[in-house]
Amino acid sequence: MTPEVFMGRDRLGAVSSTNRGLNYGDGLFETMRVDHGSIPLWPRHLARLQVGAERLALPLPDVAFLTARIQEHSAGLDAGVIKLLVTRGDGGRGYAPPVDVDPVWALSLHPLPQAGSTGLRLHVCETRLALQPALAGIKHCNRLEQVLARLEVQRADCDEGLMRNMESHPVCATSANLLVHRDGRWWTPPVETCGVAGVLRGWLLGQGLVDVAALSMEDLTSADALALCNAVRGILPVSMLGGRTWAASPAIHDLQVQLAMAYPMFSVATVVA
Amino acid sequence: MTPEVFMGRDRLGAVSSTNRGLNYGDGLFETMRVDHGSIPLWPRHLARLQVGAERLALPLPDVAFLTARIQEHSAGLDAGVIKLLVTRGDGGRGYAPPVDVDPVWALSLHPLPQAGSTGLRLHVCETRLALQPALAGIKHCNRLEQVLARLEVQRADCDEGLMRNMESHPVCATSANLLVHRDGRWWTPPVETCGVAGVLRGWLLGQGLVDVAALSMEDLTSADALALCNAVRGILPVSMLGGRTWAASPAIHDLQVQLAMAYPMFSVATVVA
Repeated sequence: MTPEVFMGRDRLGAVSSTNRGLNYGDGLFETMRVDHGSIPLWPRHLARLQVGAERLALPLPDVAFLTARIQEHSAGLDAGVIKLLVTRGDGGRGYAPPVDVDPVWALSLHPLPQAGSTGLRLHVCETRLALQPALAGIKHCNRLEQVLARLEVQRADCDEGLMRNMESHPVCATSANLLVHRDGRWWTPPVETCGVAGVLRGWLLGQGLVDVAALSMEDLTSADALALCNAVRGILPVSMLGGRTWAASPAIHDLQVQLAMAYPMFSVATVVA
Repeated sequence: MTPEVFMGRDRLGAVSSTNRGLNYGDGLFETMRVDHGSIPLWPRHLARLQVGAERLALPLPDVAFLTARIQEHSAGLDAGVIKLLVTRGDGGRGYAPPVDVDPVWALSLHPLPQAGSTGLRLHVCETRLALQPALAGIKHCNRLEQVLARLEVQRADCDEGLMRNMESHPVCATSANLLVHRDGRWWTPPVETCGVAGVLRGWLLGQGLVDVAALSMEDLTSADALALCNAVRGILPVSMLGGRTWAASPAIHDLQVQLAMAYPMFSVATVVA
């Protein structure tokens, strides 16, 4: 199915070159897993979208209409990914948003990424996450930091990149949150000044399976286990970070089992080494 | 003339919803003054674009072809603005740039903004500029900070907004650089950690008419004169910042005369108060 573009409730043939998303990254997005026609964490995706819209003073399309279009796209799809992109519509030249905004938004379907049979090798990215509370947590479209970090990951021939903030504290991966197992507990860094408040991270925190803590690089390299999480791929073990490697971890397996009990589509086949 | 969109050297009908500029603000732009068919500061615009492209590892379209298209658009236009937008083309889902990038870029013409007969009233924006050396100086498309600041300016019913960095030092306006007259000299804040290295700012520095200095808010409110500058509007007097007001300043007039001697299109009619 080719991507569909809407202005408010009207289908458009294409995106205008005056679109504010295109010119300024003035928009929000959600990347969601589809399982047998439904989206497992939809209420959390919608809630984050609404927080982002409020933060950016960006009017969303009618939520019932948008939800119906997402259902329409997902229907009949056994396993895949749907991406929703919402921009602040078309604008003249200049940063000032138009008084009347007609959001332009798009839906696209993508294949589910292949699950690897081994853990992820993480590159420690030089590109840092800037401290910006006004934009932290939400899934906005200003993503050049992640693009630059991904270029580093490609050059290093790794699977993902660990991103640190300007104070050298680890925050997240380029497209996943970070989970760190220490002292018999799972921890994840705060995202109040940079990083994205991942939907699956939110679920894990809500279940009391993970707690928030500011961590150092030393806390990571001396951890019992590291994992990444996002709403598309679930919980992914990390096998390497810089010079440190980790073997398969029962703590990660336990967390994956907890998730699979609530959301079976995230269940992981046991890997025999 | 409606905006034109190109992929490399080929004209496109429209922008794809998978465009990386649209999804991630993964692009660069230049907003240029057109005067009798030519662009006064073109070599500096092109140089900044090339610096930005190198910083983002973003391949530019062929420069000779791009220049010819800009000339074609500007021909016959007595006074106006041309905007060049260059994105990293179309991409799949995910931050990692495709291996082979065909840049998608657009040209659009806009009217020259009306020159006001009085100075600009500046709102002191709460939205701060994040410290990010990897993106500072270049004219990239991650502009949510400027969009949020402009929303503040609209609400405050002012003309422009003063933006400070995370350490509360003034840096620039939302779409212009800042010039501060103190101790008989003009100063402008550094842009190595945030802000844009404006093309006209670069010319003023190159001519020795302005020097770089880190400034405090107190340096601004106690200054003899404040002005803004950009490559479209030239040098604009500031009449108000927070509680402080300024009358017309001979120092601003002198700077405007220096600019008009080199670039007559920026000459300002003498205003009788």
